[in-house]
Amino acid sequence: MVVAKKWVLVKRSEGYPKETDIVLQEETLPELKVDEFLVEAVYLSVDPYMRAMMPRSEVNTTMIGSQVGKIIESKNPKYPVGKYVIGQYGWRTHTIVSGNEFTRILPDLGGLPSSLALGILGMPGNTAYFGFLELCKPKAGETVVVSAAGGAVGSIVGQIAKIKGCTVVGIAGSDQKGKWLTDELGFDSFINYKTDNVEEALKKAAPKGVDCYFDNVGGEISTIVMNQMNEFGRVAICGAVSYYNEKEIPKVPAPQFAIVSKQLRVEGFIAIRWTGRWMEGLKQNTEWIKQGKLKYHETVTDGFENMFKAFVDMLKGGNMGKALVKA
Amino acid sequence: MVVAKKWVLVKRSEGYPKETDIVLQEETLPELKVDEFLVEAVYLSVDPYMRAMMPRSEVNTTMIGSQVGKIIESKNPKYPVGKYVIGQYGWRTHTIVSGNEFTRILPDLGGLPSSLALGILGMPGNTAYFGFLELCKPKAGETVVVSAAGGAVGSIVGQIAKIKGCTVVGIAGSDQKGKWLTDELGFDSFINYKTDNVEEALKKAAPKGVDCYFDNVGGEISTIVMNQMNEFGRVAICGAVSYYNEKEIPKVPAPQFAIVSKQLRVEGFIAIRWTGRWMEGLKQNTEWIKQGKLKYHETVTDGFENMFKAFVDMLKGGNMGKALVKA
Repeated sequence: MVVAKKWVLVKRSEGYPKETDIVLQEETLPELKVDEFLVEAVYLSVDPYMRAMMPRSEVNTTMIGSQVGKIIESKNPKYPVGKYVIGQYGWRTHTIVSGNEFTRILPDLGGLPSSLALGILGMPGNTAYFGFLELCKPKAGETVVVSAAGGAVGSIVGQIAKIKGCTVVGIAGSDQKGKWLTDELGFDSFINYKTDNVEEALKKAAPKGVDCYFDNVGGEISTIVMNQMNEFGRVAICGAVSYYNEKEIPKVPAPQFAIVSKQLRVEGFIAIRWTGRWMEGLKQNTEWIKQGKLKYHETVTDGFENMFKAFVDMLKGGNMGKALVKA
Repeated sequence: MVVAKKWVLVKRSEGYPKETDIVLQEETLPELKVDEFLVEAVYLSVDPYMRAMMPRSEVNTTMIGSQVGKIIESKNPKYPVGKYVIGQYGWRTHTIVSGNEFTRILPDLGGLPSSLALGILGMPGNTAYFGFLELCKPKAGETVVVSAAGGAVGSIVGQIAKIKGCTVVGIAGSDQKGKWLTDELGFDSFINYKTDNVEEALKKAAPKGVDCYFDNVGGEISTIVMNQMNEFGRVAICGAVSYYNEKEIPKVPAPQFAIVSKQLRVEGFIAIRWTGRWMEGLKQNTEWIKQGKLKYHETVTDGFENMFKAFVDMLKGGNMGKALVKA
């Protein structure tokens, strides 16, 4: 008998999630049936979208999310014991999986750590790769602004923009992140939205105006950036983390005038729209890592029992690069 | 000696323009020099964009705008007396034009009235044609919403959407306009934003959700429509007339969450981006008019001295179709 631990949403949070909203429970798992296999979590992902989904999730269900796990028992010859897999199993230590709908055998990462399959060589990496390149269509010499630049996606977007020959301005919430962005990842400049006047700082950082904006945050900062964009600028909206924890969507100056007068194109996206090209992104990011052009950082929290803490810490911007939990 | 009349912006308006902001003046014109010609206005256009440009215009300059005029004197053999032209001469009865930068000889309208060169066979017609078809990319069977549907551009967009096999919902500010849209122009339904609950009315009018939104107004209505859009919906932003007369841009719920969760594409545009294809739009609209598929209405105000009144009346939604002044 295997006893799984799992984090269950028992109350839809208002504001930042509280410890009483998401609670740790145990579940005794049944014996495996034919075709099933048992996965033990190795790394679990905490991502902003999990907060965004909470108001739309059923209560008393396990928190959603992906993990890298190891098959420790199997009655399915396609998924033998010892193999590592990636799956959307939610916040669980042990999962009985049947069929293969939400499971992929961990692809060859060329010797890189398996945790990267949840980050730069997984959904966040492909979110950056496809979202930025396909929607912003950056050209060499253009100016690119990235918000939540210290996060899993933003930190990759900025580096890809540098690879493409752009001037890159990162917006993030701590000088420590800023130092990492400029000194290690090659961003041209950094704006601390908590301590700088973003409008003034952006005028200095982007004197020729902004051509591409990769937007992870929404809200007031987006308005400020859009007002400084050049004609035919492109905005890729990846998320709106600035108000995932708000009771109501905040009001901002209506953006239509900026959009029409500068003929901006603003597009929201979810990376799975490029499912058919998934391996292309992973392959390119792997290559860039090996060439030293793309760097990554992981903020790893130890222990499945600290998953809630890691989640809230990430929502508050405590992570640098990808936030992960090591089970 | 010819004495021209002209309307001069003497004070940038706050709110709706006041009679003391834009005043009628006279100007004695000099003799023509070689290559110059004199145009007498026949029809003058009043458009929402003129209000949008006012905060960015120099005071004590003539109000901008286009007109259809007749050449009454000429020292330029390419522009002989008697020809009709279209030009960006501003709000003036008589204009000395040199060179041909802002002038086009009126193209052959196939027997249709010359005033249409300021409407359905001019900028508004091409704004509708290119903006809607190129940015919304409507497919047969989709649901299209048009705001300011009773205006020069919106009334054409809705009809083109019908030609393309879409279900069309018009939003406008009077039941008289609504009756015209549904009974004469073939719109499927109409929402009066002044008397209806737009959110509820739209749910009824677009039960399958909205695929394309041609946005002339911005503000609160745009948020309501975007919240009811389907995945991969397209929004073409043509203008934001709802707040051209406001002191400050109104605050609306931040649209990023709707844009990202539904993967919407939102694009602002100015029709001159399709200058290279200009005749294509005019030709197609002419053909549709002759086939009875595209109808137009003009709200014509008589007398150059009533131009200010016609302008404000248009800004308040008093026009049905294209607002014009007959000099």
